[in-house]
Amino acid sequence: MPNFAAVDPDFESRIRASFGAQQVMQTLGARLVHIRPGEVRIELPFSPALGQQHGFLHAGVLGIIVDSACGYAAYTLMPADSEVLSVEYKINFLSPARGRLFGAIGRVVKPGRTLTVCAGEAWAHADAEPKLVAAMQATMICVPKSQPAGPAIDSGG
Amino acid sequence: MPNFAAVDPDFESRIRASFGAQQVMQTLGARLVHIRPGEVRIELPFSPALGQQHGFLHAGVLGIIVDSACGYAAYTLMPADSEVLSVEYKINFLSPARGRLFGAIGRVVKPGRTLTVCAGEAWAHADAEPKLVAAMQATMICVPKSQPAGPAIDSGG
Amino acid sequence: MPNFAAVDPDFESRIRASFGAQQVMQTLGARLVHIRPGEVRIELPFSPALGQQHGFLHAGVLGIIVDSACGYAAYTLMPADSEVLSVEYKINFLSPARGRLFGAIGRVVKPGRTLTVCAGEAWAHADAEPKLVAAMQATMICVPKSQPAGPAIDSGG
Amino acid sequence: MPNFAAVDPDFESRIRASFGAQQVMQTLGARLVHIRPGEVRIELPFSPALGQQHGFLHAGVLGIIVDSACGYAAYTLMPADSEVLSVEYKINFLSPARGRLFGAIGRVVKPGRTLTVCAGEAWAHADAEPKLVAAMQATMICVPKSQPAGPAIDSGG
Repeated sequence: MPNFAAVDPDFESRIRASFGAQQVMQTLGARLVHIRPGEVRIELPFSPALGQQHGFLHAGVLGIIVDSACGYAAYTLMPADSEVLSVEYKINFLSPARGRLFGAIGRVVKPGRTLTVCAGEAWAHADAEPKLVAAMQATMICVPKSQPAGPAIDSGG
Repeated sequence: MPNFAAVDPDFESRIRASFGAQQVMQTLGARLVHIRPGEVRIELPFSPALGQQHGFLHAGVLGIIVDSACGYAAYTLMPADSEVLSVEYKINFLSPARGRLFGAIGRVVKPGRTLTVCAGEAWAHADAEPKLVAAMQATMICVPKSQPAGPAIDSGG
Repeated sequence: MPNFAAVDPDFESRIRASFGAQQVMQTLGARLVHIRPGEVRIELPFSPALGQQHGFLHAGVLGIIVDSACGYAAYTLMPADSEVLSVEYKINFLSPARGRLFGAIGRVVKPGRTLTVCAGEAWAHADAEPKLVAAMQATMICVPKSQPAGPAIDSGG
Repeated sequence: MPNFAAVDPDFESRIRASFGAQQVMQTLGARLVHIRPGEVRIELPFSPALGQQHGFLHAGVLGIIVDSACGYAAYTLMPADSEVLSVEYKINFLSPARGRLFGAIGRVVKPGRTLTVCAGEAWAHADAEPKLVAAMQATMICVPKSQPAGPAIDSGG
């Protein structure tokens, strides 16, 4: 990964505040464990409340945490008075999400003034060594803080 | 949408049983509201527990319910002794997910013996008319019920 | 599809000029056959020069023409002094691209000031009725004509 | 990247033969320059015949060569009597495709008996150091050589 520099020295506290305000992260039990310019790691302990029909973690829950890791990775490089929104993401599920803990890593592939492209991964931690269970490619958009509803995406129609 | 025929006459009860076994759907509060061959609709009432930092529904939650609607849409056309797994999906977020109720619709675009391609949509219901808030394109795989862990995706390594 | 209105009354001639300037379209033999607000159709006669190892049309060639149809569909709704660029696309290949003529249709799903989301399809025309061979979901960006290199995507680094 | 082992010792000649049979690669002027288990590199010299409206390489042409690099990367790990087909891919365009030579690299992320997931990149070579211009995430399928038309994808309907 290239070495990125953050333009906002307070990027970490900005991201921790945003993450803390996402009620769904507490509902799922997700934790923000690592932040550096261009890279964010989120962890999620397994809970039966998040299971699919075979009792493993529901694949869509991986989608949420990897998307969040990608969004916050992009957000590390954005200016202080901005918001980050997911434009779109694509995720491949590689193996059943079996484990007691899941790690989601988001990394910036290409930062931009408006759009930032990220790569994400989800790893399952069981007893053996971690296993890659999902891969994501995502596009994030930077919007001014005064327009949190995202006029760039929404035509207002 | 083409008119699809189900090979398994009991597809609806099979899908209701699978949905009922997905603990995460109860955690989110999602309901299976409509099933017909090649099309499934899931609804999710808004809850602050599912919110992002501005109090709207977290976009990733839309990913879960649209993915599920697509997966079950594909599953309507699969044989009785099969399981459905998400190979991958791509989702675009079109407008902020503001509303009191969200509807996710999955439709089969192209069924296949092994792979089925689906299109999904999420609609937000507020006071005015419903608004399209997300669009998905997804690939589902049919695996024998005896191999629920998905050997076709997982090399077993 | 919703009924879209073009803000630039000369959208059709603007698009025909842009298409005509794309040398690769002449190399492939593609033709712009239909333009209306929010929808564009491109056709491509089969040529052995575009074949894959079994002599059918190479799937990637479908990617080019469906991406172009989506980009120009988005461009119909953009202002006169703008350029359109592909941010990203995702394409599923549904059936072998066997035929003597291929039709690519791009439709706007959600227009926006900056980003426009489109859905695309490719149809193969052989002797029988047309067959859907590919489905695309794409994100397009509108950039001012004075910045054709796309500063929104490119950080200039 | 993990270290992959090929099950077919003749994977390189098998891939060179398949690439040689793809007429479109000769039409574009693409060359297969590097093959090892799980990784393939294709190069394409710029030609005005492949240009878009600003004279740079058309983005869709990048899609073809990165898709091919991913497909052949997957094919290195497949058995001798198999064929590889693209199920789907998603590509982000990161910077204008300006250069005299383009390199496409496909790498296996997760091999599987039926499906293989790959990551692809396109690099532009101008006068300065190479620049990453596109990133892909792709799903490939392995089909028996006797069924080259891909029954797994095509329901035959």
